Amino acid sequence: MAFMVIKNVNVLTMNKEKDIIENGVVVLDDHIIHDIGNEELLDQYPCDHIIDGKNGMLIPGMINTHTHTSMVVFRSLGDDVPNRLKRYLFPLEKMLVDKGLVYLGAKYGILEMLLGGVTTFTDMYFYEDEVAKAAKELGIRGVLGETIMNFPSPDSEEPYGGLAYSKWFIEKWKDDDLIIPAVAPHALYTNDKEHLQMAAALSDKYHVPMMMHVAEMEYEYKQCIEEHHMTPVKYLDSIGVLSDRFLVAHGILVTEEDIDILEKRKVGIAHNVGANSKGAKGVAPITEMFHRGMKVGLGTDGPMSGNTLDIVTQMSLVGKVHKLFNHDRRLFPASEILEMATIGGARALNLDKDIGSIEVGKKADLVLVETSSVNMQPIYDYYSVLVYSANPSNVDTVIVDGKVLVKNKQLVQREVATSTTIDEVTNTPLAIMEQLKRVREKIEKAANKL
Amino acid sequence: MAFMVIKNVNVLTMNKEKDIIENGVVVLDDHIIHDIGNEELLDQYPCDHIIDGKNGMLIPGMINTHTHTSMVVFRSLGDDVPNRLKRYLFPLEKMLVDKGLVYLGAKYGILEMLLGGVTTFTDMYFYEDEVAKAAKELGIRGVLGETIMNFPSPDSEEPYGGLAYSKWFIEKWKDDDLIIPAVAPHALYTNDKEHLQMAAALSDKYHVPMMMHVAEMEYEYKQCIEEHHMTPVKYLDSIGVLSDRFLVAHGILVTEEDIDILEKRKVGIAHNVGANSKGAKGVAPITEMFHRGMKVGLGTDGPMSGNTLDIVTQMSLVGKVHKLFNHDRRLFPASEILEMATIGGARALNLDKDIGSIEVGKKADLVLVETSSVNMQPIYDYYSVLVYSANPSNVDTVIVDGKVLVKNKQLVQREVATSTTIDEVTNTPLAIMEQLKRVREKIEKAANKL
Repeated sequence: MAFMVIKNVNVLTMNKEKDIIENGVVVLDDHIIHDIGNEELLDQYPCDHIIDGKNGMLIPGMINTHTHTSMVVFRSLGDDVPNRLKRYLFPLEKMLVDKGLVYLGAKYGILEMLLGGVTTFTDMYFYEDEVAKAAKELGIRGVLGETIMNFPSPDSEEPYGGLAYSKWFIEKWKDDDLIIPAVAPHALYTNDKEHLQMAAALSDKYHVPMMMHVAEMEYEYKQCIEEHHMTPVKYLDSIGVLSDRFLVAHGILVTEEDIDILEKRKVGIAHNVGANSKGAKGVAPITEMFHRGMKVGLGTDGPMSGNTLDIVTQMSLVGKVHKLFNHDRRLFPASEILEMATIGGARALNLDKDIGSIEVGKKADLVLVETSSVNMQPIYDYYSVLVYSANPSNVDTVIVDGKVLVKNKQLVQREVATSTTIDEVTNTPLAIMEQLKRVREKIEKAANKL
Repeated sequence: MAFMVIKNVNVLTMNKEKDIIENGVVVLDDHIIHDIGNEELLDQYPCDHIIDGKNGMLIPGMINTHTHTSMVVFRSLGDDVPNRLKRYLFPLEKMLVDKGLVYLGAKYGILEMLLGGVTTFTDMYFYEDEVAKAAKELGIRGVLGETIMNFPSPDSEEPYGGLAYSKWFIEKWKDDDLIIPAVAPHALYTNDKEHLQMAAALSDKYHVPMMMHVAEMEYEYKQCIEEHHMTPVKYLDSIGVLSDRFLVAHGILVTEEDIDILEKRKVGIAHNVGANSKGAKGVAPITEMFHRGMKVGLGTDGPMSGNTLDIVTQMSLVGKVHKLFNHDRRLFPASEILEMATIGGARALNLDKDIGSIEVGKKADLVLVETSSVNMQPIYDYYSVLVYSANPSNVDTVIVDGKVLVKNKQLVQREVATSTTIDEVTNTPLAIMEQLKRVREKIEKAANKL
């Protein structure tokens, strides 16, 4: 047996009792959490691979429940402008997006997520197979779905080409240890009833997640009411596509009745507080959803919407936006926010039996947050420090599936097969960044024409 | 002449035209910005002291227009609880606060501010002379005012003892090059008319700023209406204390008429978006104030309220909260947010002739933000990257009054006289942090009794 021991850490387990073990020790056996306890465990599990946590906080790996990682290549384009999606982003993607760019963006974005403590991410984009390849190479866990839309997209000349792609993609990845393929129709305003039901049938057949932008946009809501005389959530339920495998991204424009439906169908919610705020879209009623015990996780949305890809920056915002909007400073104590960032996200993805908390038998997805930086002291309340003071640069060590991917705030270089998609891309952060800089000019020229 | 040259930087001048100089050069002559231009300047000013900006962004030093720095010793205590100020914080301060703790907290908080790119901070607390000493030792610019209150405070057995202290404090520091003494009555609910007018007279006599919590709390507003049949702003105007030297901290609960008054009196506004949100206090109408051309800067509030002391984390929040609240994603483009963080803060403090922008003749308060971290790329829009992607860990170099205080993200150790207040305290970050850890236990015990 090859044990790995993490010592000298304050373990925020995020188990049901939210147990905290100060000066704790966590023992991994390959990719599984094998034992959790105090320093006595050090005698019990003598081993060579010991990580000294330097009195930092060990938390479950954070889960990004909604993003479009590869859009990082467009980050800082189109901020602060109106009607961005249809007049700016869709044309830019049509003109530019190819497999190589998706792969490059995925590499870059995953790098940022890992460095910021994200161990599982949920992605919807084009050429999702490229995202899967990038995820495998870097070693992050991914729930990945090819976008399905009613118009030609970069990866398909035919409308709804994403459906065939999805089937192929699911077949390819369904037995992987890190990649969970999913079905991802873009939204109500880009999919008709027939194709949504086909997507749901695919999700049923393979028992994979189905995820979709729902109740996000005012025009989406208005159009749904006009066409179907129902809210988006009610309409989706009426056509039979909601299930406990369904993940709603956003869920801002929902009624009390909609929340009842989502609760009844055990639908998961990806709450993207940063992107929703920056886009002036509104405040999703996750206060009520979370306190009903529904499955709520946090997401960043794409980096053109929310800019950063880490979950640390989302946590502080969740507290601030919901306290402010509900006029109640007691709402969402910091421990509940870390809950959403970890086990809540796992619940939303139906992965809570495997990940989301530090418990014996679960997969070893762990994040060590250092407490030696000035912003991390003093500590009277671990959760407060994490939620209100930390930033992604405080993430020190990241372990996914028992493998140390980030150490001393740097990506650990591993021996991996390099992809052939872009010859020059290697897995060093600098090489990935240099690649991105090279495509920047081309993108900027195209953006200036819009 | 001893020039210092900063090269290979993208200069966000924040002058009136918001000029950006890519691959720029900035020349300092001692504590003054002497020249700004392109690489040609390198031949014109040959000198030994050259800082290579490594293609980062050079911005004016950020200005924190409202905080209570020393409260950092209590940070992460009392989050997410109701009625915190009167039932929790005031007693804790009475029991605990002594000169040494104020000095230690100031050292610690200033360290955090410098590392995060704050070059001028505005502070209200007890024993403000200790804060001034700490500021001088570390080399930051400070606008500092002793708190004046109608009940015994840690530094005064008599009510309103802060008034006499203020006079002494102003006399002591009025000719300093870094410290600007101020008059700081706490709030309407802790000061009567007579003493507010005495404070204003002091501000008049010495031509120093007067700052105060105004229109922040619902009970403050209600009490003012009940007692004076006027809003807080209108009442302050009616007793003649508002002037262009007055700085309103918060200004949340203001009417249209109040905004008219504040505009007419040329009052400065310290907008504390993070603390206001986390405390569920409301959204200050700075959209209107800023677009009327009023003097609006950003502040963190005390670290028990807003937790972090840097302005970078405030910038992203300003955009998000105001876009969301006003339901307009175009509102406050990123360049306007950096304006508030720099020259806006300088205007609010009437220091805009000296600091707040990178212009020839102004004092050399400068911040270099690196662009080599993953979260800082790609860059299509400098302002967007700074406001929506950066975090305080991206601050690389900080110059105050021509002196390099932070380099490569580390405090530069300078030869300074050590204070005698706490013997063991030196200016090394580790020594300051160790001191703080030692008082932590004492504070926690006291807090548990509340």
